[in-house]
Amino acid sequence: MAGKKVLIVYAHQEPRSFNGSLKKVAVDELSKQGCTVTVSDLYAMDFEPRATRKDMTSALSNPEFFSYGVEAYEACKKLSLTSDIIDEQKKVQEADLVIFQFPLYWFSVPAILKGWMDRVLCQGFAFDIPGFDDSGFLQGKLALLSITTGGTAEMYSKTGVSGDFRYFLWPLQHGTLHFCGFKVLAPQISFAPEFVSEEERKGMLASWSQRLKTIWKEEPIPCTPPWYFGQ
Amino acid sequence: MAGKKVLIVYAHQEPRSFNGSLKKVAVDELSKQGCTVTVSDLYAMDFEPRATRKDMTSALSNPEFFSYGVEAYEACKKLSLTSDIIDEQKKVQEADLVIFQFPLYWFSVPAILKGWMDRVLCQGFAFDIPGFDDSGFLQGKLALLSITTGGTAEMYSKTGVSGDFRYFLWPLQHGTLHFCGFKVLAPQISFAPEFVSEEERKGMLASWSQRLKTIWKEEPIPCTPPWYFGQ
Repeated sequence: MAGKKVLIVYAHQEPRSFNGSLKKVAVDELSKQGCTVTVSDLYAMDFEPRATRKDMTSALSNPEFFSYGVEAYEACKKLSLTSDIIDEQKKVQEADLVIFQFPLYWFSVPAILKGWMDRVLCQGFAFDIPGFDDSGFLQGKLALLSITTGGTAEMYSKTGVSGDFRYFLWPLQHGTLHFCGFKVLAPQISFAPEFVSEEERKGMLASWSQRLKTIWKEEPIPCTPPWYFGQ
Repeated sequence: MAGKKVLIVYAHQEPRSFNGSLKKVAVDELSKQGCTVTVSDLYAMDFEPRATRKDMTSALSNPEFFSYGVEAYEACKKLSLTSDIIDEQKKVQEADLVIFQFPLYWFSVPAILKGWMDRVLCQGFAFDIPGFDDSGFLQGKLALLSITTGGTAEMYSKTGVSGDFRYFLWPLQHGTLHFCGFKVLAPQISFAPEFVSEEERKGMLASWSQRLKTIWKEEPIPCTPPWYFGQ
């Protein structure tokens, strides 16, 4: 939709990968709509995943006992977080929609993207304690996980060896995005692109592109247990 | 138990933290039993979390199209993974029990520990496809997650705002450890150590130490859905 701002946080090493193609499709379709699209290409940026005292550029509030959470909160308030964090926070702040594009590593995000979440979504920027109960600071923003898997859709079903794909979404969609106030759109899961035909891969890209045409009309999904666990 | 080997993969920045104390308690108690205890202190090692082509020290099998999973598998077979990965794999290979000691970050492990999982537990070392069905290579080994949380036990109950703590364990215990063949012992969760009294913190350390006295007699927990989701 013209005027909307989209941030794509992209975590794949190879531009010609299927993840790279999904990212490109999103950039193309959203740009065509008149959206402003920004990409954080984490591997190309050599983004730092480790949460350390290097993230604070001014004196620590307690140099004798380092607590990352406490110091990040203080540094956030004093605007003294390191610039790579502040740059990402600005991109999130300006975005109407944040798309995370990544391959599933161990039922979760790759470490480089986990580091983005650990460092960028700090207290003071993305939430304040206690969180949940609609107190996250990123309200009014949409988030969407676009994921590729090694396993097939059948493996990620309730009776499959990997269990329902909703199970692995819980820490990301509920524990992270919902906590920060995002409204979460349904995940876009491209199952086992390595193991399907070229034709099917093209179909996956086309359906992602098609979905993006009406993405601004979508309703968020519930981020509470029944959706995840079918209870 | 005398003669047993234990690896503690430890992810906290501050030696004087409660995580540091839990680690120290484990080293002390297990050493006293006559175990050989090795600690991988990830922040002190400045452990690399990013999965990149720097992890392969010989020519890539496909330099035109980089697939981390494919190249790590090939490099593993050719013994040409980078030395920090091989060092950790050796420690895992020798261990009877691997304890992961970390604070919960976004319902999961800190990025530095996620990177350890992404890079160390590669195909060819920890599993071969398809995985599950007891085909993981790390069979005969025990694994245990020792976690500190910000939230209270009540928050991590089925009706609490954070949901049952078993939900966030799924990607780690089922999706990662069980997949690799580990037998998983019950997690040791120290809830909200920051928000309890000094007395209660001492109680948590004592109960961890006490548990470790009989750790070798424990039965593994189930790593399949009913335990996680109460279905």
